[in-house]
This record gives sequence, structure tokens and C-alpha cells, in this order.
Amino acid sequence: MDRVNITKRGVDRLRAGHPWIYRSDLLGNPGDSIESGAAVEVADDKGRPQGTAFYSVQSQIALRMIARETVEPDRAFFRSKLASAIALRERLFPGATALRLVHGEADLLPGLVVDRYGDHLSIQTPIPATERRKELIADLLEELLKPAGIVERNDARSRLLEGLDQTKGILRGSYEGPTEYREGDTILSVDLLEGQKTGAFLDQRENHIKAGDYAKGRALDLFSYAGGFALQLARGAKSVRAVEISEAACETIGRNAERTGRDVDVVCANVFDWLRDELSSGARYDTIVLDPPAFAKSKSAIPAATRGYKEVNLRALQLLAPGGVLLTFTCSYHVGPEDFEAIVTDAARDAKREVQVLERLGAGRDHPVLLTAPETRYLKGLVLRAP
Amino acid sequence: MDRVNITKRGVDRLRAGHPWIYRSDLLGNPGDSIESGAAVEVADDKGRPQGTAFYSVQSQIALRMIARETVEPDRAFFRSKLASAIALRERLFPGATALRLVHGEADLLPGLVVDRYGDHLSIQTPIPATERRKELIADLLEELLKPAGIVERNDARSRLLEGLDQTKGILRGSYEGPTEYREGDTILSVDLLEGQKTGAFLDQRENHIKAGDYAKGRALDLFSYAGGFALQLARGAKSVRAVEISEAACETIGRNAERTGRDVDVVCANVFDWLRDELSSGARYDTIVLDPPAFAKSKSAIPAATRGYKEVNLRALQLLAPGGVLLTFTCSYHVGPEDFEAIVTDAARDAKREVQVLERLGAGRDHPVLLTAPETRYLKGLVLRAP
Repeated sequence: MDRVNITKRGVDRLRAGHPWIYRSDLLGNPGDSIESGAAVEVADDKGRPQGTAFYSVQSQIALRMIARETVEPDRAFFRSKLASAIALRERLFPGATALRLVHGEADLLPGLVVDRYGDHLSIQTPIPATERRKELIADLLEELLKPAGIVERNDARSRLLEGLDQTKGILRGSYEGPTEYREGDTILSVDLLEGQKTGAFLDQRENHIKAGDYAKGRALDLFSYAGGFALQLARGAKSVRAVEISEAACETIGRNAERTGRDVDVVCANVFDWLRDELSSGARYDTIVLDPPAFAKSKSAIPAATRGYKEVNLRALQLLAPGGVLLTFTCSYHVGPEDFEAIVTDAARDAKREVQVLERLGAGRDHPVLLTAPETRYLKGLVLRAP
Repeated sequence: MDRVNITKRGVDRLRAGHPWIYRSDLLGNPGDSIESGAAVEVADDKGRPQGTAFYSVQSQIALRMIARETVEPDRAFFRSKLASAIALRERLFPGATALRLVHGEADLLPGLVVDRYGDHLSIQTPIPATERRKELIADLLEELLKPAGIVERNDARSRLLEGLDQTKGILRGSYEGPTEYREGDTILSVDLLEGQKTGAFLDQRENHIKAGDYAKGRALDLFSYAGGFALQLARGAKSVRAVEISEAACETIGRNAERTGRDVDVVCANVFDWLRDELSSGARYDTIVLDPPAFAKSKSAIPAATRGYKEVNLRALQLLAPGGVLLTFTCSYHVGPEDFEAIVTDAARDAKREVQVLERLGAGRDHPVLLTAPETRYLKGLVLRAP
């Protein structure tokens, strides 16, 4: 096994429990003298071993730790990590038809994402180390889970930063989409080869169901996408309106509502514009979900994103009837939990509403966060009530 | 209505949505020229009205805002605030036999706490304004809820700081304790006149039930008090051990286990000592709950509290079997959410365990937090898994 030495600062990061070493913390840049995707022994400046990592030639994240000891990432290694990740989901979600089985770093398997939808698996191997071990991983997934097929969704643009091609297709078995799956008692559908991300927004699955438990009176789902929240709101609300700009997504909401046998009034519109019009009409809602796309995709976008989040949260609070409940989210990694609460507090002040926090939410538990790597926490939510 | 003028800094606090004004932000200290407990109009240095507050002569918190307008806190005012607080609980917890109905500031009723246990209510009026309106409040609670009796638990030492006596007793109807109540399907018992706090730890009620959902294998409940967690763990675990130092509490756990028909092995011991012994015995647990009392009751106690939390979290992680789940809490207001996560991260590092965060928890939703007053957030919890 090749060895890569790292700086004192790098060692400190590892000691703090962080799983990543940046290129700037490598001593004597190995460049491509080590093959991209190789497992390497990580050592400090004196050569003392610090563990094992996957090495990437091109990425700024040069090393991703896979163990704090020197280990060979062989079949037994991957089998045990996969089995542990699967065991967590079996403990938490027995019988779930759609969920994330492996969530990269947070499952101690950097560079690997595995989602289950019905009898099929959808995998992503966004770094050279997992890309070159794709067949081994597929073998093990077949052995452990016996899926009808495995699809790869390796079409993310971020692969280019790792020197990998963008590709998608069937890895094992067969796939004829779309796939129906359930979130609680709603029925959704996804095409594993054509949908966004790996197909759906599984990270919000548990929150979708929770929103349904809060639903009451007139309900509103803003940035509804495929209607994951809207369909759950329809369980408890008298009426549900979903606002979504994409025409394709609006059609999906309609089909999902029909499948599940629920009524959702779909408004195909820009949410910002619609909110302004709706407010001036004097309408009010008892339960509102506000789950916008990531407004801040980079650090430089933070100021504009902050204004955007502030505006939609302000409008949503203004639309909220007395005693109403608002579930508000941000999935921008660059907007941290404290930033997000400050934005919402600012909005509450401008709306002149006293606001109670009932719960703080995160991504579903099949999307765990590594305690020592706050970077793996991106989805934040608040359940608010305004008396 | 008397008027109290406040500084620019005080006005800024109000604009930020905070409900308290400290004595140091009063202009021209009114002292006892205004009766303690009076409702006063709050105004800025130019006399412009900022809202209405309860005035306390003795407390450092001189003003507690009850409205952002000028209002008379009459029967209609209290009735509407009480009804709104009760409506939230009816929406969230229909049929619950024990819960907090009014949670002070966070329900826009500063200085009032109302808990329900079965057919009885237990109230606290810890400031002069609510103390002198106690009969009105009791009238309204009888009207709205028709309890069999109302007990007051005004025996907290903090009342002395407000110039109030310590007292407890029956305000309305009758009470013959103890009262049995349910958390999910466990049966607990509390004596409303003799128990700790207002009787039990209702703020952990939702988390007790959640812990039961995580329970598996050998379970351990540290600082068990009345066994609220231990009894729920017994739903899913093969065996449950509860460790608690108070002999009276240990007897309570035994009686609650018998009532509910569950087995709990109660160990009456100092948790710190027991943890050291248990670790050296080589025992391991699959599900652990760690809910210590507030180690930091004041700012000066923070360093010692930090060491205490670190030690128990380290030991608990060392006792956790591979793939095990730890639910860890702090109820110290002085140890904030970031401080708490840093302590647990530090413990994970020392235990050499990679740790996944599955959920972040707070007090139950019948103990809401005011968005604009972070002081009202004291209970923080993490659900962790160590693969």
C-alpha cells in the first residue's frame, strides 16, 4: 500500500475526527505517482501511521479516511461497512419501500450512496476509489439485498472535478421504470434513470410524514416539486394547495395525488410572485410547508440566498392564520443552522408575529450526519407556530 | 395604567423580539411607586408606546412583555391566551393524560405554568403579576377545562427573588394523591403536592416514548429518576437496567415497572462510580439513555459541568456495543447546543468511536421555545449511533 504523509494541521483535523484531508495538507504532493482511487496509508510528518484513506488525484479533497488503522479495503471490509449501514435502516425503518441505505462518509463509506426504491437499488460512486470498485460493490449489494436490478446515477456534474465521466445506466439485473413507492400511506412514483438527484428527495421522507401529522384546516405547500409534502398535508387538512414553478413537476403532483386518491389544488407559478399576489388577496392558511431549493449553492451566493429565504419566510408568516403551523426548511449547506434561525427570526420580527419553535428538524435518519464532520449536515428545518 | 420608560438598548431588545427588560434598562427607576405585579405601558425615551408588560419591583427582570400594543390584561386577555395555549396541545396531543398546558413566555403568558395530570391541574405563578391574578387564572382554567381540582406548586426558591412566599396547596376542588398517568403505554404515578418540580419531568415525555422506539438488545438508563426512559426502553429491549442514586427514586422505578407490567433491573448507585465499575467488567449495551440532572446551575459551574458531561458521555460511548444507539441529553441552560455538541464530540474522540447523529432533540412540543428568546431553550438531546 502506498503511503501519503500529511502536515501537522492535517493530523489535527484527523484527531478532531474529520474524515477529509485537503490537498494543501499533503506533504510532498504525490500527484499521479499514486493511482487515483488507490487506498493509501496516511502518515504524519515523522511517518507514524494515522489510518487508511482513498486517494484522489484531481479533487481538492485529496484523502477520504476509511479507517483509523491500516486496513485493506477488500471484499470483507466493504461487506462489513455495507452490512452495518443496512442494519441501521432495518432497525429504524422495517418494511420501508424507499430509503437511503448508504450515505457516504456518514456511513463510513466515503464516495458511496445507495438508495432503495421498491425492488431496485440506485447507486452513486462519485470518486475514483468507489468508481473503480463499482463491480465489487454491486456484487456485495446483490449478495446482501437481492435486488431485481441496480441502476447507477453517475451523471452529477461534480464527477468532472474528480476526473470522472458523467454516466447513468443499468449495472445489474433489469429496470423498466417508473417505480412506485410509498411514504407512509402516500404513493409516489420515480423513474430511477430520468428523475432529479437519484430520483426523489428521500432526505425529506420522514419530514413529509411529520408534516401530515401537523396538517389542519387550509394547507399550503410552497416549492412543492413532486408533492411529497402536499400529499401528506392532504391527510389532515380540509384543503391543500401546492405551488410549483416546473410544469413537469406540477403534472407529477397531479399524478401522485390521483395514485394516492387525494385532492391537491396545483398552482403552476413562481412562488415569489404567487406569494405577493396571494397576500394582497387576503387569503390565510392554517398549515404551511416552505421547502425551497438550495438558494446558496456557493459561498458567494449567501447574501442573495439570505434575502431570498428572508422574503419567502416573511411572506409565509404573513399568510399564516392565528395559531397556524409553519414547517420551514433550508437545504443550503452554506446557510448553517444558526444563520437559518437568524433569518427566520428576522422574518418573524418583520411580520410582527410572536413565534413558538415546536421542533427542530434535520434530514431523515437514513441520512445521518457524522458528529465530527459538520459539513455532512445540510438540511435544517423548524416547526413553528404563531399564536 | 402606569407608564415605564426604557433605554434605547431596551427598545432594541424589544424590537429583536425579546420579551424581557432588565432593571438596568429602565429610565428613572420607578421602584415601588408602581405596585409590583401591575401591568404597565412600556415607552421609549421619547414616550412612544412599545407595548404592555408585567412589572416586578424586586426581580432583575423588571418587565415581562405581554403584548406589543397597549392592552389591559383582563379576563378576556387571559382567556384568549389560555385558549390558544390549550388549542396547541389539543392539536398535538389529543387524549394525553399528562402534559404541560401553559409554558410561560413561550405561550405569551410570562409567569404562568400549567400542567395537567389526569383530571387535575398543577399551576405555578412565580411572579407578582400572575400571583395576584391567581384567582382569575383559576376561574378561567375551571371554565375552560373543568378539572377535578387545581393544585398550586408555588414552593420554588426562585419566588424569594420576586419577593413572594414559598407555598403549595389546593386552590380549587380537591386532591387526593397520588395521580396515575400514562406516557404512551407506560403507567407512571405522581403526587402533585409532594413530587419534584410540578411533579414529574413532562419535558421529556415525548423523548421517553421516542427512546422506546429505538430500544433493542441490552438497554441501560442512566440517571433514571422515576424510570420514564427505562420503562419505555423495556418495550423493545431484551433487558433494561436503570441506574439511579436516590433510594426513593429507585423504589418509584420499581413501582412504576410493576404498574406497567415490565421488568427493569434497578441499580441504586452513584452513576459515575457505577460506570467505571461496569466498564472494567467488560459489559456492553445496545441502547443507552443518558439524561443527567443539570450539572451547570450557574455560569460559574460551567467548567465543572463540562467535565462531568464529558466523563459520562465518554463512559457511555465506551459501554456502547458496535451499532448501538445512545440518546444523550443536557438540561443545563448554561450549556448551549453548540457547547453540548462539542462536549459529546470530544467524548467520541476520546472513546475512539466514529459517531453518527441520527436526530437532534429538544423538550417536548408542549414545552415550546420562543424563537426570539433563546433563553427559553434549555433541554438539548442527540440520538447517536456508533457503528
